[in-house]
Amino acid sequence: MELSVETLMITTGGSRIALLSEQTASLLGVHSSDRIKITCKKQEMIAIANIADYFPQNRIGLYQETVAALGVKEGETVNAQLAPLPESLFNIRAKLHGERLRERDIIAIVKDVVERHLSTVEIAAFLTALSIHGLSTSETEFLSRAMISTGKTIDFGKRPILDKHSVGGIPGDKTSMIVVPIVAAAGFTIPKTSSRAITSPAGTADRVETLCPVNLSIKEIKEVVSKTNGCLVWGGSLELAPADDLFIQVEYPLGIDPMLLPSILSKKKAIGATHVVIDIPTGMGAKIKTRTEAYTLASDFIDLGKRLGLNIQCALTFGEQPLGCGIGPALEAREALTTLMGEGPSDLREKAIGLAGMLFEMVGAKNGRAIADEMVDSGKAMKKMREIIAAQGGNPLINPEDLPVGPESALVRSEQSGKVLWLSTDDIVRIAREAGAPKEKGAGVVLHAKLGDAVHKGGVLFEIYAERSSKLTSALELAGKLSPIVLSNKPEEKMILDKVPEKTRHEKVFNIDR
Amino acid sequence: MELSVETLMITTGGSRIALLSEQTASLLGVHSSDRIKITCKKQEMIAIANIADYFPQNRIGLYQETVAALGVKEGETVNAQLAPLPESLFNIRAKLHGERLRERDIIAIVKDVVERHLSTVEIAAFLTALSIHGLSTSETEFLSRAMISTGKTIDFGKRPILDKHSVGGIPGDKTSMIVVPIVAAAGFTIPKTSSRAITSPAGTADRVETLCPVNLSIKEIKEVVSKTNGCLVWGGSLELAPADDLFIQVEYPLGIDPMLLPSILSKKKAIGATHVVIDIPTGMGAKIKTRTEAYTLASDFIDLGKRLGLNIQCALTFGEQPLGCGIGPALEAREALTTLMGEGPSDLREKAIGLAGMLFEMVGAKNGRAIADEMVDSGKAMKKMREIIAAQGGNPLINPEDLPVGPESALVRSEQSGKVLWLSTDDIVRIAREAGAPKEKGAGVVLHAKLGDAVHKGGVLFEIYAERSSKLTSALELAGKLSPIVLSNKPEEKMILDKVPEKTRHEKVFNIDR
Repeated sequence: MELSVETLMITTGGSRIALLSEQTASLLGVHSSDRIKITCKKQEMIAIANIADYFPQNRIGLYQETVAALGVKEGETVNAQLAPLPESLFNIRAKLHGERLRERDIIAIVKDVVERHLSTVEIAAFLTALSIHGLSTSETEFLSRAMISTGKTIDFGKRPILDKHSVGGIPGDKTSMIVVPIVAAAGFTIPKTSSRAITSPAGTADRVETLCPVNLSIKEIKEVVSKTNGCLVWGGSLELAPADDLFIQVEYPLGIDPMLLPSILSKKKAIGATHVVIDIPTGMGAKIKTRTEAYTLASDFIDLGKRLGLNIQCALTFGEQPLGCGIGPALEAREALTTLMGEGPSDLREKAIGLAGMLFEMVGAKNGRAIADEMVDSGKAMKKMREIIAAQGGNPLINPEDLPVGPESALVRSEQSGKVLWLSTDDIVRIAREAGAPKEKGAGVVLHAKLGDAVHKGGVLFEIYAERSSKLTSALELAGKLSPIVLSNKPEEKMILDKVPEKTRHEKVFNIDR
Repeated sequence: MELSVETLMITTGGSRIALLSEQTASLLGVHSSDRIKITCKKQEMIAIANIADYFPQNRIGLYQETVAALGVKEGETVNAQLAPLPESLFNIRAKLHGERLRERDIIAIVKDVVERHLSTVEIAAFLTALSIHGLSTSETEFLSRAMISTGKTIDFGKRPILDKHSVGGIPGDKTSMIVVPIVAAAGFTIPKTSSRAITSPAGTADRVETLCPVNLSIKEIKEVVSKTNGCLVWGGSLELAPADDLFIQVEYPLGIDPMLLPSILSKKKAIGATHVVIDIPTGMGAKIKTRTEAYTLASDFIDLGKRLGLNIQCALTFGEQPLGCGIGPALEAREALTTLMGEGPSDLREKAIGLAGMLFEMVGAKNGRAIADEMVDSGKAMKKMREIIAAQGGNPLINPEDLPVGPESALVRSEQSGKVLWLSTDDIVRIAREAGAPKEKGAGVVLHAKLGDAVHKGGVLFEIYAERSSKLTSALELAGKLSPIVLSNKPEEKMILDKVPEKTRHEKVFNIDR
């Protein structure tokens, strides 16, 4: 059927969607979410049909992505017809019924996700089915490979390429900003890509962005790495395993994360990593709550790494509370710099040294921790960090106190004295986000009391920073309501953690940040 | 944050969506699929955010549904802020993790589906989880009740109200068009709503529409029923259990149907039915393949009916082949009229008489079948059908041969002689749809040979009707490729039904039509 193009001046964020009037759709035999094949001159593409009641007849509305893909202009004539369902959709239906998928089935799905032949409804059903039925080891491998092969890859032309990744889940985890300069200072290559926060108060990309640009092209990354051995960039626009970004968009509202393993390792493989340390924060405050869960995940990582040709070690790290004291992009960047200068909180230094040391030993060093310690104590790591900042386009002379935080701030004090018995990371996250993090880079929380610390009545528990007084007020209100830090002189004085009367369903906190 | 409204002249088909630029979304702390609360004067509403890369900043793009709900104009200023996740989304997440839902949880979900507070991604995840985990009896009841209470209901002011429904799945099933006039002619009230075809060559609404309008308002339905005791109308725009229509839209591409029971019975309850016969076509060619499955479904229907205060009986009917001979809207309407006139295929008459007889006995009659037979043989049923056609705005004098079919047609002949051993309803459906059904009302297939019939070499197997010669050609090609009717003199001559070499995954036919 010949239809006249109406170009819609908006984008859909990737999906190729074509709008039809109800009557035109009916003539084509097309229902909402059916696919149509659009032909224009010699170009041909598949778009998903959206049906609009009041859209003009005999016209086809094309969003920017579809216009670009077809190269058509307003008013041009295209041919549209009902396209058959893609094979990949039958593979998704098979997974819904609990069937195991073969490699070719998974390739078809991932390819159609990347080429936008599958709707978000279909992707949501696929991810839900994966989340409920689980993935076999082979399926995990096939998914990883398909995600790598449908995206770009970077070849730095040398080996080994080291990398470090956290499965995420504890606030204040700025370890990457310390591990990367330590490893690079020791002469190894470590091209670190990271994400921005979705559910947390700061992602590594958000933290580093307070020091220098992070939105680099692949060409720029290669230049930075060839100059400095390392980089700290945002991975979101590089199209390394782009299927992952599309999956995360759908997983986020659903609070499921069935693709954790292939998601992380496909990106590592795409950037050419050969040796990777996976940090698995474990504990009440983390994404992984128990050691059993952590060990299972670790052995899954190592197994999948082997199948993909990646040398992997996992570190189970203490995840009962935030790491360090600062939470929020600028507050965390400050703390990372301080730690690189040999000061900073001891838990943060300890973890960074530990992970860097593991990487050194994976590539043959004898005493990894000693090398890492030396890099910090000699000032080499800080010097390397300044080189990386300069190479990415930031000011290499920056010092921690130069980074703007606040300017609004307020102290939250204890109403009793005692030792910190427990500390809700979920609540701290909510308070930091309420204060404006991660969007307002100077916003966040600085903890003054951590597990086991003694606090006097009237002593400071934490400090809230915000860029606007209205945000500070609402974060303070939330802090008063939540009481995220619980004190007691002896644990036995405070055995009831929470009471559940006619409570509504507990809203579990979901963390999709990697 | 204050934003200027840009009204988009298109509808989304119901969803309330607001479009923001990436930068505006970022300032609001909104990610794609997050909800935003939009306030304008005293109106307030929740919309789901879509983020568009090139949309202008400080503006909010509103689709027609959102514009209507808020009552705003182009260029007006509204306030937008990030809204918390709805409670219903946490209930959906709980179902994803296999938890049982309470009545209040289900009400929250269904209410948010109807009020468009949940995105199609979230609805897809919910339906997928229901499909995989299954529903408890209580969950089925809660869903039905929630679907009824979030829609309109009709009160005809009398009892009993009879109804008949098929779970669907065999082509050519025009039984409702015969049962309704039989029951109405006997003095009982039977307000029949039905759907249009989605995956089949004709829905009852499509069939009846060849005789008279079916898109009636609730007021018009009441008038028709008070005049004639019955009606045959399209249920799609009546907002009886509207959640069901939204669920079906999402289920359709996924090929799942976890809501079959609540979907059917909520609509029956909304129209005030007191006594319902559920037809469960059972067999190779039907949605329900085995007797075991059919009996389980029947007892689920009866149980759910009891919980909802509906008197239900189920009929397991022969579902190995299409019902009657005509397949396609006009061809089927012709056959229904012929059957009401005392002629027509015997299987169709037998089934209609049987189902009408069950209804009569459910409301106290002794020999239901005899009453039904009498209604047809006396001409009362046909007279009633003409009354209903007239009341709905059609021509009461119409005769079967007046209904336009074709005009293109071709016979498909047998290349051998033998008896019909089996007949693929799926293939017949594909051929009828390829010929243009259900959109082209005169298109379809007429079977000349059914199970057990003897056919000579060169004898007619079936006839294809189309409104356009191009459609006839492609339907004939498909028929040649599929060979939907298999002949054999003795079954033992033809034991191999199909061969599976390096075949791709078998594309199971999915039927969502009720």
